[in-house]
Amino acid sequence: MAVNLRAPNPASLAPVDGVELGFAEAGIRKAGRRDLMLMRLAPGARVAGVFTQNSFAAAPVQVCRNRLATGHSIRALVVNAGNANCGTGEAGLRAAERTCASVAAAIGCAPEEVLPFSTGVILEHLPVERIEASLPACIATLGAANWAEAAAAIMTTDTVAKGASRRAEIDGRRVAVTGIAKGVGMLEPNMATMLAFVATDAAVAQAALDRLVREVARASFNRVTVDGDTSTNDSFVLVATAQAANPEITDPGSPAYGVLKAALTDVSATLAQAIARDGEGATKFITVRVAGAASEDEAARVAKKIANSPLVKTAFFASDPNLGRLVMAIGNAGIADLDVSRVDLYLEDVKVIDRGGRGASYREEDGARLMRPDEITVRVELGRGSAETTVWTCDFSYEYVKINAEYRT
Amino acid sequence: MAVNLRAPNPASLAPVDGVELGFAEAGIRKAGRRDLMLMRLAPGARVAGVFTQNSFAAAPVQVCRNRLATGHSIRALVVNAGNANCGTGEAGLRAAERTCASVAAAIGCAPEEVLPFSTGVILEHLPVERIEASLPACIATLGAANWAEAAAAIMTTDTVAKGASRRAEIDGRRVAVTGIAKGVGMLEPNMATMLAFVATDAAVAQAALDRLVREVARASFNRVTVDGDTSTNDSFVLVATAQAANPEITDPGSPAYGVLKAALTDVSATLAQAIARDGEGATKFITVRVAGAASEDEAARVAKKIANSPLVKTAFFASDPNLGRLVMAIGNAGIADLDVSRVDLYLEDVKVIDRGGRGASYREEDGARLMRPDEITVRVELGRGSAETTVWTCDFSYEYVKINAEYRT
Repeated sequence: MAVNLRAPNPASLAPVDGVELGFAEAGIRKAGRRDLMLMRLAPGARVAGVFTQNSFAAAPVQVCRNRLATGHSIRALVVNAGNANCGTGEAGLRAAERTCASVAAAIGCAPEEVLPFSTGVILEHLPVERIEASLPACIATLGAANWAEAAAAIMTTDTVAKGASRRAEIDGRRVAVTGIAKGVGMLEPNMATMLAFVATDAAVAQAALDRLVREVARASFNRVTVDGDTSTNDSFVLVATAQAANPEITDPGSPAYGVLKAALTDVSATLAQAIARDGEGATKFITVRVAGAASEDEAARVAKKIANSPLVKTAFFASDPNLGRLVMAIGNAGIADLDVSRVDLYLEDVKVIDRGGRGASYREEDGARLMRPDEITVRVELGRGSAETTVWTCDFSYEYVKINAEYRT
Repeated sequence: MAVNLRAPNPASLAPVDGVELGFAEAGIRKAGRRDLMLMRLAPGARVAGVFTQNSFAAAPVQVCRNRLATGHSIRALVVNAGNANCGTGEAGLRAAERTCASVAAAIGCAPEEVLPFSTGVILEHLPVERIEASLPACIATLGAANWAEAAAAIMTTDTVAKGASRRAEIDGRRVAVTGIAKGVGMLEPNMATMLAFVATDAAVAQAALDRLVREVARASFNRVTVDGDTSTNDSFVLVATAQAANPEITDPGSPAYGVLKAALTDVSATLAQAIARDGEGATKFITVRVAGAASEDEAARVAKKIANSPLVKTAFFASDPNLGRLVMAIGNAGIADLDVSRVDLYLEDVKVIDRGGRGASYREEDGARLMRPDEITVRVELGRGSAETTVWTCDFSYEYVKINAEYRT
């Protein structure tokens, strides 16, 4: 069902010096599929992450937050699919810690140097022993060229593995940026995302990396929504291995920071769009641009209201130019002093709403024609200022209901 | 598809002295169905209303707000289905005014004494001439016993007409409270509701009536949600005709105020529940009770997050005890300092979540059994205070997508 999305060609995902990836079938929820992924990092790698704002943050998210806060070096990330280890209380925290300890023993580092990640069903206990039993097989596969296999091993209801890669030149050194992500439902990342791991061999100071992960999340994963439900396990982690031997990036105002940020954002936005293209039941990929806002937050509020409205999403599914639903969604964004007589709305380049009312030149036939393609752009002008943003989403089909009614069965 | 809901027996809807109802087929969007309703009020009736908080409030909503703000007496309400007269700019306002003027001329009052209401497709111009052409037929049917027919005439995608009635005794006088409502989708009333009209023959001072309409809305229509999309046309109007000749109710602290408020709330909550029971594609009626909150607003935020989550709603549709989705929804309510280790959750009387984690005694079989019935209650204890609220909603089925993908075709 994914909209214009294919699994990445493994050869297109550039290895990142200092990163090796392994995978295994641990049988965490279903037998016969890869559901365990290990990312081993060379000494000296720096790691930064942002995580879900859901109050019921999963046990592995809590462990990650604590470890990253202490400034410990990180030598490995371990990821399981099929079980979210969330709503599992103290036992869940112990399960996450034990997973880390087992990985640490197997690869020779301290437990505090391992970050755990989980995705899958909430409110069920993590079968740690199955992870432990599969670790040797996982470690045996470790290799720098395994990004595509790693992307496949972290999928749940994803239909297509998600990966992207770019190269850039920083202070005369070639650097690689490669990332993978998963996620297609329970998806409206808030300050974070579903699981996404992006690595570069550039050398970046910790403070600069901490800043980059937030800036990049804001311009990529925080701009995608499938169903408006923010997961308990969203995690976006940025790894910088320093193997490219460029002068360490420290200054957010430097050209090197800008070049790396552009490459990271490009990879991350591609992954974020892949998530919407593979959104549960998606038949269309929708881009919502909101401009003329008083602030970027305000623009995002309007864009998300449009992107999350079940009525707007079912109209896209039906290719029905029921564009009054867009009016309704804009009006619900909670902008107290919105002057609707200054609001314009375009479907592609056709003006549908002109100063708050139906455009004089708008014809139903144009709407019907523009709603048919599987990629559609909606553009809103609020007439309040100069801030703008873009949000990516998908439509809402029978298949979404089917997938989520049958997820566990 | 409506869940345990039948159209009211016409005999069960008590006439309200001072209120007559008429109906007609105006062919506003489709031929061969009643889509025009007129409510004529006796001189001396008082009217109060609350309306949508959507920034794109429809033209009739704007006209109603203005008229009620001036304190004009009101002699008639005119309601059309099939066209929302929203996103129609100045022309829409003129269409609403012209509708009122035509009604006024036909029944012999001033245009300012008529309130207009519209529901249906947004962003299309109101065919006023069809309304005008049908007014004589509508007026010819005016009668006090027509509440059931009036309820049917304001339906859009509703499958069942919605009406409720109660009697009460105030200061020794018998009074009637009868109301009708419509609405099944684009439905999360915000300070208001879809179209709902509740009348009583009690005598109520204007200030007391203005207060009652807000208090009753808060305890009824503002507690229901189908899809989280707040309509542009939501209107809840309370009429008090004073025909019962009770001493006029003025004091919100008086027993008479309390008795009338209870009867009004009872009728309005029954109508609000009818809306969720007839929610688009509904197969189950869900009650979400949130207690132990620091404030009623906080309780409502948690309850609405649960009630609006597509993942929670599809799990109810599937009778799948995927109760981790409830955890996810609670965590997304945006309570910054929520201590999840104090949160309990019950499905009916079975404790599923105990202090933030899976209940030790909870068994999957219990969950499966409790998810099967077509009426289900979820209860959350937040452990933060003593405020509580209840929200009513429905599940989310293939049929919701079908109805909304095909609404205009």
